[in-house]
Amino acid sequence: MKILRFNEGRWGVLEGERVLETDGPGGNPTGQSYDLASVRLLVPATPSKIVCVGRNYREHIREMGHDFGEDLPQEPGLFLKAPNALAHPGNPRDPYGTGDAVPYPRFTQELHYEGELAVVIGDRMRNVREEEALDHVLGYTIAVDITARDAQKKDLQWVRAKSADKFLPLGPWIETDLDPQDTWLRTYVNDELRQEGHTSQMIFSVAQILAYISSFMTLEPMDVVLTGTPQGVGALSPGDRIEVAVEGIGTLHTRIGPKEA
Amino acid sequence: MKILRFNEGRWGVLEGERVLETDGPGGNPTGQSYDLASVRLLVPATPSKIVCVGRNYREHIREMGHDFGEDLPQEPGLFLKAPNALAHPGNPRDPYGTGDAVPYPRFTQELHYEGELAVVIGDRMRNVREEEALDHVLGYTIAVDITARDAQKKDLQWVRAKSADKFLPLGPWIETDLDPQDTWLRTYVNDELRQEGHTSQMIFSVAQILAYISSFMTLEPMDVVLTGTPQGVGALSPGDRIEVAVEGIGTLHTRIGPKEA
Repeated sequence: MKILRFNEGRWGVLEGERVLETDGPGGNPTGQSYDLASVRLLVPATPSKIVCVGRNYREHIREMGHDFGEDLPQEPGLFLKAPNALAHPGNPRDPYGTGDAVPYPRFTQELHYEGELAVVIGDRMRNVREEEALDHVLGYTIAVDITARDAQKKDLQWVRAKSADKFLPLGPWIETDLDPQDTWLRTYVNDELRQEGHTSQMIFSVAQILAYISSFMTLEPMDVVLTGTPQGVGALSPGDRIEVAVEGIGTLHTRIGPKEA
Repeated sequence: MKILRFNEGRWGVLEGERVLETDGPGGNPTGQSYDLASVRLLVPATPSKIVCVGRNYREHIREMGHDFGEDLPQEPGLFLKAPNALAHPGNPRDPYGTGDAVPYPRFTQELHYEGELAVVIGDRMRNVREEEALDHVLGYTIAVDITARDAQKKDLQWVRAKSADKFLPLGPWIETDLDPQDTWLRTYVNDELRQEGHTSQMIFSVAQILAYISSFMTLEPMDVVLTGTPQGVGALSPGDRIEVAVEGIGTLHTRIGPKEA
């Protein structure tokens, strides 16, 4: 099932090209329906927090200049993105006519994309074991973890680098039926393939990540967890179009706006 | 004016020993009132995000082992705490009978207090200049930035170290009438004075911090900004009582629970 959020904050499910409105995420039908092409898609989650895993694909660790034996993490390395970073996805039927553009802020000269599989929590989680962790998941969506790489290297912690306004395009919808460790993720910039990874290559599985987080942090319904990016990250320019495709979910379309004055 | 949140999420203002209920933070009276001693105080904010400044008092930078010439920051060094970290304050009329205890988690052997002045945002802020920044503030309250110092040194980013459940006692209320650069902050552990700082000693003023954050991050009403801790941080043990007093606001009472099994 594909769950989406649209227009002024309505929820629905996608059936073919029709959006059937529901009274909440995965809720009951209201009887209203719309053409997918006619709606404005919104970020398909309203998280109280966004928890992210850095360094979760081996080849990405290598490309960031870290060596294996020394730096392969023993536990998921977490960071936070703040909700002001959320950016609405493009509508796949009109990819660049709708959705938010990511501003290219003044403070950076090195804006990077990182395509990621994202998890949307369904039920509150605290001290949940790995074996039961996926039972608490509502479904999966797609993220671009926009990163100001120069600020990331320079700042005390990754706040500007990861949580500037609209640094997290998320969507286009939540897929509830997906094996999160058996799918391909591909990132295209201006139609050129830049990242390709299979989620079986994650160092920590989604279930391990959720169990780890929940051992010290309560995860609430609608919270979002980002699962790390495969190799192939790189720089963006104003006007670039970014597509992240995850097999079984769909494609997130986003774009970079002009340099901020 | 002292604005507080209590019981099931009601808002009110404090007049003497009476809580006059209002229809929102700083809103209109509902006509209901309560004895302060009879209510359960709640965290006096419902933030979408919590932005914190590290290293904002010179002597605290020195005690953390950083040298002056080299490390005195040129810009506020920010980090985030997630809302799951919020812990309800003690009621000053029954300091340790109410409020949340901070759990002493399994993953740390070195839990520290950091007493801080906290800012509660009143109006949305984006690209606000230093001169106008304080006009967007609802008021000021008191925080204990609970920190797992060992995890802070070890982890990729400060998530466990700063955002474990209940790592941010906040309250007891919001004071709207305060000069944030002209007050004393004192932290006591088991009645012993541990931290004493005057907010004029901040490296970055509250107005500078808010202007800086708003240059890349939209601050929303009810968001919380922590302004850094003075020297004198130190370790906590299960059962410790912590009081942070800020002149002109009052005293935040909190306590450390048992070691988690």
